Amino acid sequence: MTLWVYSLDLFGTAVFALSGALAAGRHRMDPFGVLVLAAVTAIGGGTLRDTILGAPVFWLHDHNYLYVILLTVVLTLILVRRPWRLPPSSLAIADAVGLALFTVIGTQKALTMEYGALIAVVMGLITGVGGGIIRDLLCRRIPMVLRTEIYATASILGGLVYTCSLQLKFEAEAALMLAFFTALIIRLAAIRWHLSLPAFDLKTKRD
Amino acid sequence: MTLWVYSLDLFGTAVFALSGALAAGRHRMDPFGVLVLAAVTAIGGGTLRDTILGAPVFWLHDHNYLYVILLTVVLTLILVRRPWRLPPSSLAIADAVGLALFTVIGTQKALTMEYGALIAVVMGLITGVGGGIIRDLLCRRIPMVLRTEIYATASILGGLVYTCSLQLKFEAEAALMLAFFTALIIRLAAIRWHLSLPAFDLKTKRD
Amino acid sequence: MTLWVYSLDLFGTAVFALSGALAAGRHRMDPFGVLVLAAVTAIGGGTLRDTILGAPVFWLHDHNYLYVILLTVVLTLILVRRPWRLPPSSLAIADAVGLALFTVIGTQKALTMEYGALIAVVMGLITGVGGGIIRDLLCRRIPMVLRTEIYATASILGGLVYTCSLQLKFEAEAALMLAFFTALIIRLAAIRWHLSLPAFDLKTKRD
Repeated sequence: MTLWVYSLDLFGTAVFALSGALAAGRHRMDPFGVLVLAAVTAIGGGTLRDTILGAPVFWLHDHNYLYVILLTVVLTLILVRRPWRLPPSSLAIADAVGLALFTVIGTQKALTMEYGALIAVVMGLITGVGGGIIRDLLCRRIPMVLRTEIYATASILGGLVYTCSLQLKFEAEAALMLAFFTALIIRLAAIRWHLSLPAFDLKTKRD
Repeated sequence: MTLWVYSLDLFGTAVFALSGALAAGRHRMDPFGVLVLAAVTAIGGGTLRDTILGAPVFWLHDHNYLYVILLTVVLTLILVRRPWRLPPSSLAIADAVGLALFTVIGTQKALTMEYGALIAVVMGLITGVGGGIIRDLLCRRIPMVLRTEIYATASILGGLVYTCSLQLKFEAEAALMLAFFTALIIRLAAIRWHLSLPAFDLKTKRD
Repeated sequence: MTLWVYSLDLFGTAVFALSGALAAGRHRMDPFGVLVLAAVTAIGGGTLRDTILGAPVFWLHDHNYLYVILLTVVLTLILVRRPWRLPPSSLAIADAVGLALFTVIGTQKALTMEYGALIAVVMGLITGVGGGIIRDLLCRRIPMVLRTEIYATASILGGLVYTCSLQLKFEAEAALMLAFFTALIIRLAAIRWHLSLPAFDLKTKRD
């Protein structure tokens, strides 16, 4: 992993930790509840990916991820004291950056372990959306990713662009950039214009 | 794994993917939400089993499972367009086939790895009911398996029949058939006559 | 693991199995639902710890844990027949013993595998609170540990006392006792005087 990818990975960790901390605040959790929820959101997806791949879990041997989470939570607890004043889309935009980044990093990790394109895309998806799913489960919500605007779709398309670019002999870094911006732009467009795919709807009056 | 066991395993995967897709439809999810829910239902139990056993996760190196899920979801999205017209029991019957199959396959896998009867029965249970539990969690329901008609019981009895038959020196395939039909018939009987075990009930007025 | 630590570990398993069985009773589950919920509560945290550490899952090769759970469930089903008559705090006290024990055992296991203090404390936390989180998820509650009185805090402080004591060259057993009683006393004090940390509250009228 080059230095700037690593920096972006830590930035994505901070972003997802923030999103977990804010979700905790909406459920009136105590500071350690906030910490637990921030941590599972930030490292849950990667932990799931690594245990499924049978790889050493990434944060066991690089403690920077845990320090970033701790720092993010402390800052959130200190600075965010009244109902959130930032424009609502600022969090969604940061979350989109995290989604795009974690997708690319998860895809890359599977390819490095010599898995093919299919498994790589699946691992990108697990890394990108896994943490948010666990966060929503713990907060007793139907995971946003399963019902909302284009979200998993952005991750899957990002993974596809990455693996296809490599097969077309792009440079590794160019493929990574292309995939990152593909996922990011799709997700941002979905936020901006409330794009969503048609829902599969079997709801009956009895339900 | 002989060819026909393998075929039945893929059939069980399709059946559980269908059950996940239908659950997604009742919650108005988008197509990729449907895909995610179908996938966790179909391969969640086996994934849990393999990570606990420390074995390579089965779908990493055999992509047919993922293709079966993808195909099932596409067909479901195309063909199931109005409130479900098939008789309600047809899904429950297919689900019973999947439960019985995955139980036997999970039990067999643990025995192949030289675990004893106790762990084998537990692994059959995890494989058989794990995916459905994750599906229900994501849809915010109390897992059916924990509260409804005889379900986990069918899986546990199937696993016990399998391990006992082998200790009684049955042929491997005969033991497998016997266990499969034991679990299947118990579960079908429970569906047909609404059999259930007496509930453990500590509910008080205050709850 | 010395014999008395092992005995206490089995006692903690029984205590958490009881807590899972009682939660099942409040949701009117059938006996096998009770068994499943008791088992995930009792061994869920340790299973999560071991899969993240990449260690063999502890109950695969030592069946006593499963037997203890089975015995606890059978006794609970036989003996607990009417709305719970024991003083309510008796369960909370037993649960506190389990929390303190599992924290120390999880911390110790990570240190034995030559992880540093940070990972050891995290593993103590996962072992101590993991099972209860899964139990509450399956029962569709926001995990108690995330919102209630000092709970995760007791586990984290227990883990810190353990690792610090060892670095101060305490005997292994003295460190273990000190950490166990630290976590236990903090948790019991929180139960007795309803201590809690100030909540992080971002709830707005719109929520």
